[in-house]
Amino acid sequence: MSSSDSTETASAKPSMRDALVAAAFQLFLERGYEQTTVDDIVALAGVGRRSFFRYFPSKEDVVFPDHERCLADMTAFLAASDAAHEPVRRVCDAARLVLLMYAENPSFSVQRYRLTKQVPGLRAYELSVVWRYERALAEYLRGRFAGRRDGNLRADVIAAAVVAAHNNALRSWLRSDGQGDASAAVDHALGYVQSAFGAPPAAPAEEHPEDVVVVVSRRGAPLWRVVQEIETTLGRD
Amino acid sequence: MSSSDSTETASAKPSMRDALVAAAFQLFLERGYEQTTVDDIVALAGVGRRSFFRYFPSKEDVVFPDHERCLADMTAFLAASDAAHEPVRRVCDAARLVLLMYAENPSFSVQRYRLTKQVPGLRAYELSVVWRYERALAEYLRGRFAGRRDGNLRADVIAAAVVAAHNNALRSWLRSDGQGDASAAVDHALGYVQSAFGAPPAAPAEEHPEDVVVVVSRRGAPLWRVVQEIETTLGRD
Repeated sequence: MSSSDSTETASAKPSMRDALVAAAFQLFLERGYEQTTVDDIVALAGVGRRSFFRYFPSKEDVVFPDHERCLADMTAFLAASDAAHEPVRRVCDAARLVLLMYAENPSFSVQRYRLTKQVPGLRAYELSVVWRYERALAEYLRGRFAGRRDGNLRADVIAAAVVAAHNNALRSWLRSDGQGDASAAVDHALGYVQSAFGAPPAAPAEEHPEDVVVVVSRRGAPLWRVVQEIETTLGRD
Repeated sequence: MSSSDSTETASAKPSMRDALVAAAFQLFLERGYEQTTVDDIVALAGVGRRSFFRYFPSKEDVVFPDHERCLADMTAFLAASDAAHEPVRRVCDAARLVLLMYAENPSFSVQRYRLTKQVPGLRAYELSVVWRYERALAEYLRGRFAGRRDGNLRADVIAAAVVAAHNNALRSWLRSDGQGDASAAVDHALGYVQSAFGAPPAAPAEEHPEDVVVVVSRRGAPLWRVVQEIETTLGRD
């Protein structure tokens, strides 16, 4: 086999996978998702059915080709944490891996967003993927909060808040056709969650153990505004 | 038609519906969910297929027979709100409607919990229901936070946190076979969310407009502990 005739070698596998995704999306946009069969996709991509199923367990999976990799990356990222990582910050950083996946290919992400909104089956698939991300974050936090009062409760609530904040920013970016700085929007959204639940960005307790923070607030002020004030104060050096 | 022969009257409809749910669960537990057909269910209940589909669009729906009513109740409850309702407290109260539905029939809820854990299709169905509850809460909060900075972000995050807290307590109760006080557990879980995001329980701003709250905290203290302290102070008269 010559080096140019390498479509069956392991190193060329990603491009067959990419060709299947491209063919699938071309047909989904032309004919609609429901009207496109796996046979249509493999015919357009010029490969056999077995090749399709080697990469994708089902037609839904070709719509979200990178979530399994991203879930694995997130799990590995969290597993590589140690006690020095502030837990809420760590799950926010883990959530940013999902954004990176979407931002890698904005036009594909926007196409998929529109498709998912139209097809109930894909919406259900997406919910199950989002649930798996949320559980990965929650499991990590449960480990970090183990033995603390309400540890599991706090883990579940913070994981849900992180996912909701991330998705709020991600969806705004997708609705705007991938214009603007998705990363800045997600940072801002995750900052809100950190202000509600996170520890101070620095860990100055040991350097200045006797430091106190005094916050004076009108009794009627909304709690979130008080929290923002504290967060700002704690974060300032 | 005598009063005892009233199975076909409108007032008796709920009992045919209940009979279908009971027959379905008897078969799901005996044979498994996937192995039970709608034909099996209607045969055991002694009614025709059309009766089944009059109440339930699909086999999944018979597993969750009360969510549509509960979603409608929640939407009506939120629609009946006015500006005097503190928004975070209001969505917590709305979430309690879901708990009430589960607590109405603990043994049925526990059976369903076990079934849902075993059947991926039911898990997906449940995720879609949870998503609809979360959106109902988020839409209400978006309305209440309209025009405020980050209003939509805050609405989405708080709705997700409320749902996660509710479900954390609900699942603990279901895992314990419906033992213990589900309502107290949910109150405690929602209290955590209110402490992170909510306004003070009372609204004393107008009565004591010049009141100030002073919180002194070590710089190294976790933010959530500071928040709890503030919440306690604000809530105390």
